Amino acid sequence: MDILIINGPNINLLGKREPDIYGKQSFDSYFENLQRQYPEISLSTFQSNHEGALIDKIHEVGFDIDGIILNAGAYTHTSLALHDALRAVTAPAIEVHISNVHTREDFRHHSMISAACKGVICGFGLDSYRLAVEAFIRK
Amino acid sequence: MDILIINGPNINLLGKREPDIYGKQSFDSYFENLQRQYPEISLSTFQSNHEGALIDKIHEVGFDIDGIILNAGAYTHTSLALHDALRAVTAPAIEVHISNVHTREDFRHHSMISAACKGVICGFGLDSYRLAVEAFIRK
Amino acid sequence: MDILIINGPNINLLGKREPDIYGKQSFDSYFENLQRQYPEISLSTFQSNHEGALIDKIHEVGFDIDGIILNAGAYTHTSLALHDALRAVTAPAIEVHISNVHTREDFRHHSMISAACKGVICGFGLDSYRLAVEAFIRK
Amino acid sequence: MDILIINGPNINLLGKREPDIYGKQSFDSYFENLQRQYPEISLSTFQSNHEGALIDKIHEVGFDIDGIILNAGAYTHTSLALHDALRAVTAPAIEVHISNVHTREDFRHHSMISAACKGVICGFGLDSYRLAVEAFIRK
Amino acid sequence: MDILIINGPNINLLGKREPDIYGKQSFDSYFENLQRQYPEISLSTFQSNHEGALIDKIHEVGFDIDGIILNAGAYTHTSLALHDALRAVTAPAIEVHISNVHTREDFRHHSMISAACKGVICGFGLDSYRLAVEAFIRK
Amino acid sequence: MDILIINGPNINLLGKREPDIYGKQSFDSYFENLQRQYPEISLSTFQSNHEGALIDKIHEVGFDIDGIILNAGAYTHTSLALHDALRAVTAPAIEVHISNVHTREDFRHHSMISAACKGVICGFGLDSYRLAVEAFIRK
Amino acid sequence: MDILIINGPNINLLGKREPDIYGKQSFDSYFENLQRQYPEISLSTFQSNHEGALIDKIHEVGFDIDGIILNAGAYTHTSLALHDALRAVTAPAIEVHISNVHTREDFRHHSMISAACKGVICGFGLDSYRLAVEAFIRK
Amino acid sequence: MDILIINGPNINLLGKREPDIYGKQSFDSYFENLQRQYPEISLSTFQSNHEGALIDKIHEVGFDIDGIILNAGAYTHTSLALHDALRAVTAPAIEVHISNVHTREDFRHHSMISAACKGVICGFGLDSYRLAVEAFIRK
Amino acid sequence: MDILIINGPNINLLGKREPDIYGKQSFDSYFENLQRQYPEISLSTFQSNHEGALIDKIHEVGFDIDGIILNAGAYTHTSLALHDALRAVTAPAIEVHISNVHTREDFRHHSMISAACKGVICGFGLDSYRLAVEAFIRK
Amino acid sequence: MDILIINGPNINLLGKREPDIYGKQSFDSYFENLQRQYPEISLSTFQSNHEGALIDKIHEVGFDIDGIILNAGAYTHTSLALHDALRAVTAPAIEVHISNVHTREDFRHHSMISAACKGVICGFGLDSYRLAVEAFIRK
Amino acid sequence: MDILIINGPNINLLGKREPDIYGKQSFDSYFENLQRQYPEISLSTFQSNHEGALIDKIHEVGFDIDGIILNAGAYTHTSLALHDALRAVTAPAIEVHISNVHTREDFRHHSMISAACKGVICGFGLDSYRLAVEAFIRK
Amino acid sequence: MDILIINGPNINLLGKREPDIYGKQSFDSYFENLQRQYPEISLSTFQSNHEGALIDKIHEVGFDIDGIILNAGAYTHTSLALHDALRAVTAPAIEVHISNVHTREDFRHHSMISAACKGVICGFGLDSYRLAVEAFIRK
Repeated sequence: MDILIINGPNINLLGKREPDIYGKQSFDSYFENLQRQYPEISLSTFQSNHEGALIDKIHEVGFDIDGIILNAGAYTHTSLALHDALRAVTAPAIEVHISNVHTREDFRHHSMISAACKGVICGFGLDSYRLAVEAFIRK
Repeated sequence: MDILIINGPNINLLGKREPDIYGKQSFDSYFENLQRQYPEISLSTFQSNHEGALIDKIHEVGFDIDGIILNAGAYTHTSLALHDALRAVTAPAIEVHISNVHTREDFRHHSMISAACKGVICGFGLDSYRLAVEAFIRK
Repeated sequence: MDILIINGPNINLLGKREPDIYGKQSFDSYFENLQRQYPEISLSTFQSNHEGALIDKIHEVGFDIDGIILNAGAYTHTSLALHDALRAVTAPAIEVHISNVHTREDFRHHSMISAACKGVICGFGLDSYRLAVEAFIRK
Repeated sequence: MDILIINGPNINLLGKREPDIYGKQSFDSYFENLQRQYPEISLSTFQSNHEGALIDKIHEVGFDIDGIILNAGAYTHTSLALHDALRAVTAPAIEVHISNVHTREDFRHHSMISAACKGVICGFGLDSYRLAVEAFIRK
Repeated sequence: MDILIINGPNINLLGKREPDIYGKQSFDSYFENLQRQYPEISLSTFQSNHEGALIDKIHEVGFDIDGIILNAGAYTHTSLALHDALRAVTAPAIEVHISNVHTREDFRHHSMISAACKGVICGFGLDSYRLAVEAFIRK
Repeated sequence: MDILIINGPNINLLGKREPDIYGKQSFDSYFENLQRQYPEISLSTFQSNHEGALIDKIHEVGFDIDGIILNAGAYTHTSLALHDALRAVTAPAIEVHISNVHTREDFRHHSMISAACKGVICGFGLDSYRLAVEAFIRK
Repeated sequence: MDILIINGPNINLLGKREPDIYGKQSFDSYFENLQRQYPEISLSTFQSNHEGALIDKIHEVGFDIDGIILNAGAYTHTSLALHDALRAVTAPAIEVHISNVHTREDFRHHSMISAACKGVICGFGLDSYRLAVEAFIRK
Repeated sequence: MDILIINGPNINLLGKREPDIYGKQSFDSYFENLQRQYPEISLSTFQSNHEGALIDKIHEVGFDIDGIILNAGAYTHTSLALHDALRAVTAPAIEVHISNVHTREDFRHHSMISAACKGVICGFGLDSYRLAVEAFIRK
Repeated sequence: MDILIINGPNINLLGKREPDIYGKQSFDSYFENLQRQYPEISLSTFQSNHEGALIDKIHEVGFDIDGIILNAGAYTHTSLALHDALRAVTAPAIEVHISNVHTREDFRHHSMISAACKGVICGFGLDSYRLAVEAFIRK
Repeated sequence: MDILIINGPNINLLGKREPDIYGKQSFDSYFENLQRQYPEISLSTFQSNHEGALIDKIHEVGFDIDGIILNAGAYTHTSLALHDALRAVTAPAIEVHISNVHTREDFRHHSMISAACKGVICGFGLDSYRLAVEAFIRK
Repeated sequence: MDILIINGPNINLLGKREPDIYGKQSFDSYFENLQRQYPEISLSTFQSNHEGALIDKIHEVGFDIDGIILNAGAYTHTSLALHDALRAVTAPAIEVHISNVHTREDFRHHSMISAACKGVICGFGLDSYRLAVEAFIRK
Repeated sequence: MDILIINGPNINLLGKREPDIYGKQSFDSYFENLQRQYPEISLSTFQSNHEGALIDKIHEVGFDIDGIILNAGAYTHTSLALHDALRAVTAPAIEVHISNVHTREDFRHHSMISAACKGVICGFGLDSYRLAVEAFIRK
């Protein structure tokens, strides 16, 4: 089973950005642990701050792999093009968020991509990614 | 670890309601399997169609147990009182939905309880409950 | 043919509440007359001020009887759970109102349950119930 | 008792328009049956696609007859002038719809004429007209 | 003079819920003091988390007692049925809130029951109840 | 100076409609008096319940006469086509209303034609028409 | 007959403000002409940029004079206090505007005072004031 | 191939209305040229300012011809009845506009008929009609 | 204890304005009675129709006295400057209204100053002021 | 005459994406046919999923070529920056869509770029591009 | 070069109001420093809590001086009359705010006066005034 | 002191785009002058039409330099991702605009990035950049 984790804008700063709040762990080091936990699955990861690059990647892998885990960051709330990209490919996608977006500003309460995903998982910190992997295993 | 699954209105009809769509499995039979998968956790379950009864139950257990998994059904979208009940107790709650509510009618897109929960999991069928258990284990 | 009339909150006060306006006839005495008019139909009636009790009753009878006549009172405008309950059962429902809700306050103009019903009848006083019976006979 | 049924735009196409869905019965043939069912009532019917012609007709008969049954079609949702016409005359009116408008597009959920009518009946197919006649008999 | 204090959802947790913020005093102990302050008035109290039970109680006492003091909790903002219940009975009601709801979340700024009450008192902590008693004495 | 008074839907009922409220004077008898007051002006009048007929008339006279006084009745609030017709011709128009529309229902507070008129006069009963004539004389 | 013309904020600049557009005539010189045209009426005038001063003046004269002509300028769109002041006194008021406010910015399309006035006249330049005088004479 | 061009309100004034802006060419003279360009197609044209007449015409030809080109003028933005008429007949329709409505007032940005048409062409002056003919040829 | 009662626009007309409805008692005579009831408190009163004068007064006394009772009249619904003035000073304020604003026009349902006050009391006639005094005594 | 066709996000998947619905023809093969039909015009084409790359291209060619045909895909509904880019260059643009966007989800009904284009053509499948070429030829 | 700084409601409390947050510096002492920094410019200052007084001052100086720096405080968000006053005079105005209003409550995010000003400067503490002086020097 | 000026979409066209309006000066030539005016500060500049590239740049420099001056062009109104990027880094940012956005189209009145900036400066032409430099010097 091949699963790609796609991270959107600003997520590359994890570990560097306000470490007192977000912790000092980078996404890469988290990812290594995650892969180790699920040796039977082939996990890979991609990050970009460019909406277009995220779409390009979805197109590139979306007809071949078994699942996409997408944390679209702020594009979650503004990108109809990502919505369409997810709809266009055959791989199912799961939307994840590190924080519980519903406890934050109003403009983060509405997602433009949820309706193009299989499901949504938010609020569990980095563990949200692992739960998405779990969801793909036992779907 | 003690976890209570609380199901809201109409979820008692699972297995009976439109079985061609929702399947013939009742929640109770699913629950048995779930408990078997996680023998180290003490799971229990409660269902009511009464908003007040759901609040009473949250009050009753909410200072003692380790977690609440809440599928509030339609009350998700209308019950500010459930929101307040979750805020009032000490046990963390996870909001779950069987379907991906974002692909359904507009009035199901906004949840009044998400902001009072630790996180949200929706769209994975009955597996949403298992993912919530997973979330409590590795939180 | 078995038909159940379900009355929601505050309708139990008919005959007692502002009798100068609403008349002195209780729903029970009206119901007796109605049954007498349609001896070939088995009519029954249920009232509760509890949203949950209304749902419980719809579940209890909704797979067996031939029709539900529902005056949900104020829950008409706030209860998504009643909407879902009507959707979940097999018996068709007709929404009725004693008054013409469109001549009253703005918040009574939108019904959350109409879309889960076969049809709507409002504005004919207690005669709205009889018209619903008629609708079931000749549907 | 004199009752006039007024039909608004596009209702003249009944029987011709998408017969697989709406059936092959024209309104005229339904009307004949309806008159036969209620020989003690003098029924008549009028149809126009012109908002102004509907108003003219309401003015013409509205001070003389005993009741108006109005299916205003799409004008239901846009015509304030029809609302005013109904308010201006003395005959009471009943708003009817063949389909349950609340299960259709959003723009069909709000009626501009309900508040000028005695009551509303919708969703019972052509039987909605008969129920309106019933309502006038036992008002 | 007979006055009933009705408390809605979650108010039963006073003294237990976040005692650093809300204090350790339960409503019952406050109530005892209040009764002692006004020996000439017969005070009683009722609490429920069930919207239907609150309505039942209003019906039960609303034609006999001299006043209702209602803290409807979260139902303040969602319950049209409580609004109708207050309108239906003869006893005047006063809406009270412990906190100043206008300094809290937006969804607490609008009350569905104010228009069915004689007046509103909010923001004075538990003293809001005493002020409502004062209002009944000197109305 | 040639001025045409155009009256829209339902205004033909003046004198017949609720005479206790609107008086027993028809528009025609008012118009005769008005013409007598201003013998130096050539006044004429036109009424129709048909939006299209009102537009036809504006087209017919709108390049030749000196002014249009338009009481569009309910079309005031719904007819963008009348707005365009007034914009298309060269004669200036004055919008008049018999009642003060701002004291009536919300849907009468917005006019779709005001922006295509020279000015607006409302609330002075039938005298609104005379004031419009005055406005044309001394513009 | 005593009539007071009250002018609100910025109207004192007439004749000085953008004279190419608004002309070089001050309100005072217009007022002199107006008084001369209606010698049988006692006209007076008051201007202030202070909302409170406008209210004070309405209170001072509003129980004694026969009519108020009010051009409230920008307060038209923001002052509920002026609305209440007009409601509180016995003299009828007519709202006037020099320009046709409906052809200007959106925020000038809604008046907060129209519903407290007998009628509205707008769009006729300074002649709007004369038409209001006419309206008082022949009301 | 039979195609009918239907023009709505105010379009009859082309060539007469503000000729400096709209040009001196009437629609009829444009239509002659258009027919000459497409001799293999049978073109005809109809104009009315009456919403009802437009509907009547759509009914009359809509089951027989091969296509309708509809410039509904202002009714584009207000007529749900035209929407329904287009839905009811079998001939496909193309919505055209002479101007680019999106550069004009806000109330012209939303079309009520687009969803009942095959496609929309706007902004190309009278050439919009020719493009619609092209669209029918190569559909 | 020093408490200042501040009254906003139009409240000076109490006793003079529609005496059949509001009674013949002026605020000054009510105030005398109120002072007599609470001899241990130093009460004073201030009224102005000028928003600026109300702010000036709040600044003047707001750092010295023990409490402000503010009936801001219509400024309640429009004055953000009053909100800021209350926030800026140290004396706590209580918002009062004579009528129950929630039973009046929609534009009176929202207060711009509640969030800057300790609490709100409305609907008890002039007794609202006494209840505010009570609230300050036992706060 | 030089014309550039610019395609936005996800349009590169034509022929690959849901071929049962969208057909097996890629845009490139359609483009070859189109060029062959119009040998007198120099057509070129550009596609990107990057909003910025679309803007870069508009800047690059927008002062030199004779026309832009833009299918902005989902950016149609979210990109104000594309609107500004089209406004900034001298070449006129035509907005095209393959599907009739007005029959799809609500969020596709509003275009942010229409007001910066000469005209709009939508709903004719790939033929929409040819119609745009036609529009440039005979503009 | 003559520049007047106009300060609106509550700004007179600077230095006195919550000194821990706003600092102990009064506006007057800041102003002295500012004048010293720009000896070549004649600066003056005016403050009032009265909307009308601010307008009076703008009228008084607005045709003579070279620039107005306006911190309208809360009137920024509610005063259309100030907007009109700025439009009516010839001196250009710059809107300033001490705090970044966009990080505060929603009702402070919209300014009614920005569109009547040359530009806006906000968020730089008292330095916002100096930047406005700089803007006038090098405009 | 190191300050980076970041320019968003379409700003690269300054000097080339509508030179009659925007002038013939390119941003680069303005920038040279600006650097010369402030020799003690190290200024640099970056422009991109790619939202992602702007974010990349903010990440690259945002933990090292002393300030960012950001003219985000149209992304100001649509990019939540830029908002988050500014929040994530340590360097303070100032939002600038060349024009006064509040005098332009409605969709330019709301900024999604203001709340993530220290302050906002708009409306002073290219001088807005110099004022931002001034703001950093004397912050």
